[in-house]
Amino acid sequence: MTVAKKSNARPSMLTYEDVRSVSPALEHYTKVPLLGGLWKRPELSPRDRSVVTVAALIARIQTIEMPFHFALALNNGVKPSELSEIITHLAFYSGWANAMSAVAVAKDTFHERGIGIDQLPPAKEKLLPLNEEAERQRAAQVSGNFGVTSPGLVENTTDLLFLDLWLRPALAPRDRSLVTVSALIAAGQMAQITYHLGRAVDNGLTQAQASEVLTHIAFYAGWPNAFSALPVVKDVFEKRQKQS
Amino acid sequence: MTVAKKSNARPSMLTYEDVRSVSPALEHYTKVPLLGGLWKRPELSPRDRSVVTVAALIARIQTIEMPFHFALALNNGVKPSELSEIITHLAFYSGWANAMSAVAVAKDTFHERGIGIDQLPPAKEKLLPLNEEAERQRAAQVSGNFGVTSPGLVENTTDLLFLDLWLRPALAPRDRSLVTVSALIAAGQMAQITYHLGRAVDNGLTQAQASEVLTHIAFYAGWPNAFSALPVVKDVFEKRQKQS
Amino acid sequence: MTVAKKSNARPSMLTYEDVRSVSPALEHYTKVPLLGGLWKRPELSPRDRSVVTVAALIARIQTIEMPFHFALALNNGVKPSELSEIITHLAFYSGWANAMSAVAVAKDTFHERGIGIDQLPPAKEKLLPLNEEAERQRAAQVSGNFGVTSPGLVENTTDLLFLDLWLRPALAPRDRSLVTVSALIAAGQMAQITYHLGRAVDNGLTQAQASEVLTHIAFYAGWPNAFSALPVVKDVFEKRQKQS
Repeated sequence: MTVAKKSNARPSMLTYEDVRSVSPALEHYTKVPLLGGLWKRPELSPRDRSVVTVAALIARIQTIEMPFHFALALNNGVKPSELSEIITHLAFYSGWANAMSAVAVAKDTFHERGIGIDQLPPAKEKLLPLNEEAERQRAAQVSGNFGVTSPGLVENTTDLLFLDLWLRPALAPRDRSLVTVSALIAAGQMAQITYHLGRAVDNGLTQAQASEVLTHIAFYAGWPNAFSALPVVKDVFEKRQKQS
Repeated sequence: MTVAKKSNARPSMLTYEDVRSVSPALEHYTKVPLLGGLWKRPELSPRDRSVVTVAALIARIQTIEMPFHFALALNNGVKPSELSEIITHLAFYSGWANAMSAVAVAKDTFHERGIGIDQLPPAKEKLLPLNEEAERQRAAQVSGNFGVTSPGLVENTTDLLFLDLWLRPALAPRDRSLVTVSALIAAGQMAQITYHLGRAVDNGLTQAQASEVLTHIAFYAGWPNAFSALPVVKDVFEKRQKQS
Repeated sequence: MTVAKKSNARPSMLTYEDVRSVSPALEHYTKVPLLGGLWKRPELSPRDRSVVTVAALIARIQTIEMPFHFALALNNGVKPSELSEIITHLAFYSGWANAMSAVAVAKDTFHERGIGIDQLPPAKEKLLPLNEEAERQRAAQVSGNFGVTSPGLVENTTDLLFLDLWLRPALAPRDRSLVTVSALIAAGQMAQITYHLGRAVDNGLTQAQASEVLTHIAFYAGWPNAFSALPVVKDVFEKRQKQS
């Protein structure tokens, strides 16, 4: 099912009539340039657009749009196991309560669609193979910089994030990176984009896709967050080009 | 109706009794230095204070205070059409779900007051004249900097924001700038203040008003956001003074 | 009562069954590394962990976790008068509506436990003695930098914050600093950490405790905020060491 077919759907708990009763212009912008325009651009698949949107909503605790966009994500081909794992991933990258706010919505979405625990990633499963050289470099750099400042944080980052969460197979590394970068832009955490966008490219995100993530996320995280990310994204790609 | 006459009003869905049952001090600070002090300072009109406050609440999805402040804004002379257009404007500048959270509150405010669609700005209307030279410069700079990094974002910025949204007559350019700058400070998006504060001054916001926006917004966006904006605002006004 | 004894408690309004129905992995991470691991580390007392957590939740309006963590804070030895004063403090440091969102939850917590107004700090009480030399320096620096840019903000900062709020005896200065620094990290307001972490150390927060605040807050404010705070915290402690 495509976005086009959902054009009569409610934006979350609000109807178009609700939106119109406050702003006929906002109804227009929602229907035409946003759902009828942005979501149909070929530069990013509807499935990837849903991944970006869901990540942005969770990163910003924008619960009002979650029912609509969790449902749309499943319609656009995001698997229930992937939506589950996106929420788990963002517990660490956006904050525990952000994930819990998403759980409060997703439990209803899953219940309505009869999605049971057998379709969800188990708590523990066989992990993906580790890129040991890349992880050795990452760990050495973080430990060298901050091992004295906060040994507990440095240790948890290695053990919980890079030797565990990132290796869980329920979300492809490229999608995990897409979620992370989207959440960082959406929350205005520009200082962390350089590392994670580089990792995203290593994990298979193309420059054209990253470029379109900015086009897309401007609507959901606001233009200022997209514009503040622009010079960082530009810099990452220019440095990559020089190195290659 | 002035703020003074509203001093017995409920802060949003909470009564003063509720506030007192958790913090008698917070009740005092709300009644005396905030509603009885800040809102009566002559440096900014109650109407402008409401514009700043509403923008800050929407930028931060602080829904609990929206019912009180949307009603206060209308009492202070913000027209229903202007409140409608502020919400539409912040869909782009704060994020779509921020606007939708505001719609969910404003639809009740409008319904209670019998404000119908005939009092709201239409989806499409005759636009204000464009300052072609200023827009040419803006577009050239953004395109030169970021046209390769994200062509889609650059194109939407021109077509949707500067050739459409900013020219809609339902909100005066000076007020649109006031909303934008307030939302940027409230969301901690300091990197975007320089351009928009300059534009605000071009649109008629005085330095004395901008100064008082900082005094006011500290209460609604927290002291740290106001303090992080201070050096940026200082720099904008010092550079303007040198140029003149 | 310790966290251990609360291991069967509900995370806020969600049951573990709710969490499991969306993500068995998130249930595991909540029970084992978070509540069963982080909260038991000796580097910070359960009481201080609750202060940090409550501050982070209020700074980010993460209401869904407030009922659980307000109750846990009281169980961990945070006095009702201290929880009340934390909320009042964060009205100024996070924003008025953040405090009001916390009031909406805390009034129920207090009501359920029979905590009456006699256990809460009064609106006005005898203030702690002022460190006049430190305050003279602070006021001179802020006034010199920003007295022209926003005289109203500078005046309110002195009169309402440093000659009033910070001197209220209901929260020890060290705890007030802990709340402030936690809120700044949680909200990503890195530019304000240097001053307030220095003040926190002056008020008795140790470097080991500040280090563990970063370890702890990563879970509640997300890893990116903790990592963006790391270089600032490192710099503060390195400069302190050189001076001593």
